Amino acid sequence: MTPREQAVAARAAGRTLQTLDSEARCAVLLRVADALDASRQEIEAANALDVADAAVAVADGRMTQALADRLPLPDRKLDALIDGVRAIAAQPEPLGRVVQARQLGEGLELEQVTAAIGVLLIIFESRPDALPQIAALALRSGNGLLLKGGKEATRSNRALHRVITGALAPEVPAAAVSLVEGRAAITELLALDDVIDLVIPRGSGALVSAIQQGTRIPVLGHAEGVCHVYVDAAADADKAVSLVLDSKTDYPAACNAMEGLLLHRDRASDLGPRLVDALRGAGVTVNGGPEAASLFGLPEAPDLGHEYGDMACALCLVDDVQGAMAHVHQHGSGHTECIVTEDPAAAQAFLAGVDAACVFHNASTRFADGYRFGLGAEVGISTGRIHARGPVGVDGLLTTRWKLRGDGHTVAAVKRGEWAFDWRERS
Amino acid sequence: MTPREQAVAARAAGRTLQTLDSEARCAVLLRVADALDASRQEIEAANALDVADAAVAVADGRMTQALADRLPLPDRKLDALIDGVRAIAAQPEPLGRVVQARQLGEGLELEQVTAAIGVLLIIFESRPDALPQIAALALRSGNGLLLKGGKEATRSNRALHRVITGALAPEVPAAAVSLVEGRAAITELLALDDVIDLVIPRGSGALVSAIQQGTRIPVLGHAEGVCHVYVDAAADADKAVSLVLDSKTDYPAACNAMEGLLLHRDRASDLGPRLVDALRGAGVTVNGGPEAASLFGLPEAPDLGHEYGDMACALCLVDDVQGAMAHVHQHGSGHTECIVTEDPAAAQAFLAGVDAACVFHNASTRFADGYRFGLGAEVGISTGRIHARGPVGVDGLLTTRWKLRGDGHTVAAVKRGEWAFDWRERS
Repeated sequence: MTPREQAVAARAAGRTLQTLDSEARCAVLLRVADALDASRQEIEAANALDVADAAVAVADGRMTQALADRLPLPDRKLDALIDGVRAIAAQPEPLGRVVQARQLGEGLELEQVTAAIGVLLIIFESRPDALPQIAALALRSGNGLLLKGGKEATRSNRALHRVITGALAPEVPAAAVSLVEGRAAITELLALDDVIDLVIPRGSGALVSAIQQGTRIPVLGHAEGVCHVYVDAAADADKAVSLVLDSKTDYPAACNAMEGLLLHRDRASDLGPRLVDALRGAGVTVNGGPEAASLFGLPEAPDLGHEYGDMACALCLVDDVQGAMAHVHQHGSGHTECIVTEDPAAAQAFLAGVDAACVFHNASTRFADGYRFGLGAEVGISTGRIHARGPVGVDGLLTTRWKLRGDGHTVAAVKRGEWAFDWRERS
Repeated sequence: MTPREQAVAARAAGRTLQTLDSEARCAVLLRVADALDASRQEIEAANALDVADAAVAVADGRMTQALADRLPLPDRKLDALIDGVRAIAAQPEPLGRVVQARQLGEGLELEQVTAAIGVLLIIFESRPDALPQIAALALRSGNGLLLKGGKEATRSNRALHRVITGALAPEVPAAAVSLVEGRAAITELLALDDVIDLVIPRGSGALVSAIQQGTRIPVLGHAEGVCHVYVDAAADADKAVSLVLDSKTDYPAACNAMEGLLLHRDRASDLGPRLVDALRGAGVTVNGGPEAASLFGLPEAPDLGHEYGDMACALCLVDDVQGAMAHVHQHGSGHTECIVTEDPAAAQAFLAGVDAACVFHNASTRFADGYRFGLGAEVGISTGRIHARGPVGVDGLLTTRWKLRGDGHTVAAVKRGEWAFDWRERS
């Protein structure tokens, strides 16, 4: 099948999936979990071949260690995966939830209900564990799914895909979860804006950027995470040090790690050296904006909007909360921004004024995450302003439909004065 | 200013607007309404020049009558406009509404709140009355706005824009509502996917299609409205005739008008001739699908997915509700689909199974409209599945932000076992 044929078949299969009731869709998921459990040997054997090839590729300099690190599927990862599929089956039913309901007039009842989007395309690198998680989310939410994995995980992905689709029959066509292979297929897939509704890239910023630039299909994700912590004039010193360290060092490669530290200039003398020492003590390279560099003897930061993605950050002085917000709007990526302060007015100004997916007060930027937010399974984190923003759970895989039930109601009758609109909200 | 400079200024002005409280934003709207009221002469004089030029252009064959018909701004239209602006001021506050709230752990409180999207671009043809309505919606929802009107309404749009921006000072920068002129500007605007968040085209299907094909910015709207009425085996004959007539003839040029009539083959003999006669009696040209054409002696429809947009439609026979749904999915545009039946099971199957923005049972397709749905001011009707679907009210101009309030909470403390996530929903 061509990618287009796979996408068209995925839409039809998704529609079949949507007609199953909640119990039936959950039963399919539990079968998938059981099948994964029963096929550990097959999956692990396929994965071992990918891992072995990756080791050679790393040694030859053809693959990064980071990519290779995300390949293995040890037993404990399979355990977590299988548990994850069961947890997704146990979540509240996502489809058909009433968003709003309203009587338009006597006997004319309107409901807006949640519905599957249609066809999702997931493009992922390495991490074959993404495949069953995403497949489970798609099955739960009635979406047809196209999976395009990386070459480095070909055998792992094929094995996982074979096991999952083997558990779908008889209710769900195998086309509901479709694996697309070959590098050339990506370009073809990204051109299918008439049959694919949403692209979710899971991988490097470079991958996400390339996809965003190469398609008219909406993309859910973020290419960059340039997050800041602003330490206000009224910051508690201990909290500031602790939050800055956590935001930078807990997992420096994460998109929600701090890249820029903003310090109110009134605290430059007491907190500046303490923050720099604490960061350096933890192994962080601290660069400085023009003023901070000379004041604290720091190397000058080449670009204040840089995403270091490792143990480095830039420190800048700002005049006040307004200055911090202006800096964040100029250099940030709209991901997560934090203020450290004991002043409720400053906190309020920052929470109300910062235009970003996540805005935090006295909490580490590292909390910007679907699991930590309590969303259950995470689809991704979006810095877009359309559809879904910030950490996205299964809600990001849904749209709505409007259902109207009448008894022969016509607009002509309204115009003739036989009845009039009388909108009443239904709870 | 270049279009890019206008867009950047609109984002900054939008952010200023967002920091105003609800009362202040409403006060601005009421000033806009008063200014429009006080400037009727100026607006009507400018409009009269556009209308006079349009009459010449129509006579010369350089403009369609339909476009010219949407130009005039008589006093009663201005009345409605001014009332509309005041009604938008009186609507419930759209910004800062709590969508969900959850405690993540002791003292760590998460809220997802509604927020302005950022910068909207409205591209509209003729109908200068769209300008103040959209401007009022954007001001109410804290969005910066770029308006690109048609050449035929240049003087009307300039006058309306001058009056509106004159009423914004001192709190709101004039750049919050920005008029972009010149045909070349459209291409430039549609390339600004880094500063414009959403495009809303108001005009012909051709305009919407061209915009959808020409930009990576999300587009809210619909290029086509190919809606069907399916008359089921268990349809009440009188309701069927009345709903079919209303759906086709109430306003045949509307996007929610019926283009395809599907008839269950068991009702071909009793209802077929009656429906054809009723439609013809109302002046509708009835074409037929291959089977219906020969059975009822109708001209054969060239394309079953055609949007007639006037007093014509296509009649097709289908085997059952499944056949009707398959037809709708193949030929429809995902706008509005209706089933006429007294059989609750058939209604349920159709309401659950049809993949469209609006699915109706025993109600005219003409109800698919923001005003009739009770949404207040209408932004447009979307057949997309991302962000907003169906008739869209002010909610379509909103995104959300996540606010997290803590007291020095770090992820490292969770890892050290000092506290654990304990998600509790807040009402």
